Amino acid sequence: MRVLGVDPGLTRCGLGVVDGSPGRRLTLVAVDVVRTPAAADIGARLIALERHVEAWLDAHRPDAVAVERVFSQHNVATVMGTAQAGAVAITCAARRGIPVALHTPSEVKAAVTGSGRAGKGQVAMMVTRLLHLDDRPTPADAADALALAICHLWRGVAQARLDAAVSAAQARAAHGGDVRAEDVDVASAVVGPAS
Amino acid sequence: MRVLGVDPGLTRCGLGVVDGSPGRRLTLVAVDVVRTPAAADIGARLIALERHVEAWLDAHRPDAVAVERVFSQHNVATVMGTAQAGAVAITCAARRGIPVALHTPSEVKAAVTGSGRAGKGQVAMMVTRLLHLDDRPTPADAADALALAICHLWRGVAQARLDAAVSAAQARAAHGGDVRAEDVDVASAVVGPAS
Repeated sequence: MRVLGVDPGLTRCGLGVVDGSPGRRLTLVAVDVVRTPAAADIGARLIALERHVEAWLDAHRPDAVAVERVFSQHNVATVMGTAQAGAVAITCAARRGIPVALHTPSEVKAAVTGSGRAGKGQVAMMVTRLLHLDDRPTPADAADALALAICHLWRGVAQARLDAAVSAAQARAAHGGDVRAEDVDVASAVVGPAS
Repeated sequence: MRVLGVDPGLTRCGLGVVDGSPGRRLTLVAVDVVRTPAAADIGARLIALERHVEAWLDAHRPDAVAVERVFSQHNVATVMGTAQAGAVAITCAARRGIPVALHTPSEVKAAVTGSGRAGKGQVAMMVTRLLHLDDRPTPADAADALALAICHLWRGVAQARLDAAVSAAQARAAHGGDVRAEDVDVASAVVGPAS
């Protein structure tokens, strides 16, 4: 499965493509940060971003797109830019029928570091380690986009395991069996890497 | 000149097209409110809105698009939806090379009612009067979209007059004339209808 992670922004928009499948190590496919000039008008900035996202969807053909969901931020101007850039990425994916998932910053941090309150440096360090890179991706938006993609891959794996466990438990229950302790373990498993 | 006003939103997005030119009365061309289901995923909602905006740009061929600019709002979820829907409208217009202008709610209220702090009812009443309609456009999003278009038309007229006055004053100054009192009057004129 291939995921394009998007850390949306008008000034800097992080794009990161990661390949992953259950039981195999994650692979970096591509990472970049798109910048649009603050002096340009909003329409020009959004279509520049749109062209870039379209080119990445053409080049990398991801199975899913994961975009940062912003719940609250103090600076409304930042929220606006984030929402506008995110809308462009979501629309590009939806137009092609590619599933879009939104993950909050704390979900992403928890997925890659184990803590929803991890700092930017810790996220970048874990992304570097998980993707077996020589250096940290910079700027932070690049690392954040890759972390989003990793978060989405792991959630997909965890969800697939959960679905399989629930189906197995239901099948056993339908045949008069008991729900086993291992079903409960799997059903309550935290989101994490395929070991 | 024909303007498409967009009062952006995911749940309800107001679209209003108004024709106007200096010294002539304003004409309503079309008004509608696009609704997207809250239960649908964000990608489906944004492309539904995109299709609707594209269809309106094809059908009405506006010379400019005026979108509400949101500076601050208490509810971040609302700001996000507004920004995302606005981004779709801006991107559709920019792709076709149609100029996009952003006006704040208080600029729009001031343009149609004379007060930047007017209520929704007052805006709807003035839109009804200015466009010579029999009834108020409903819901409020429809009236707000029309108010945005009217605001943009009047600002365009006021700007054109201002530019002409400045050019005339510069031409006179270049020929050794004085800047006249009437130039100052025009240069400081408030945005308003062509009388």
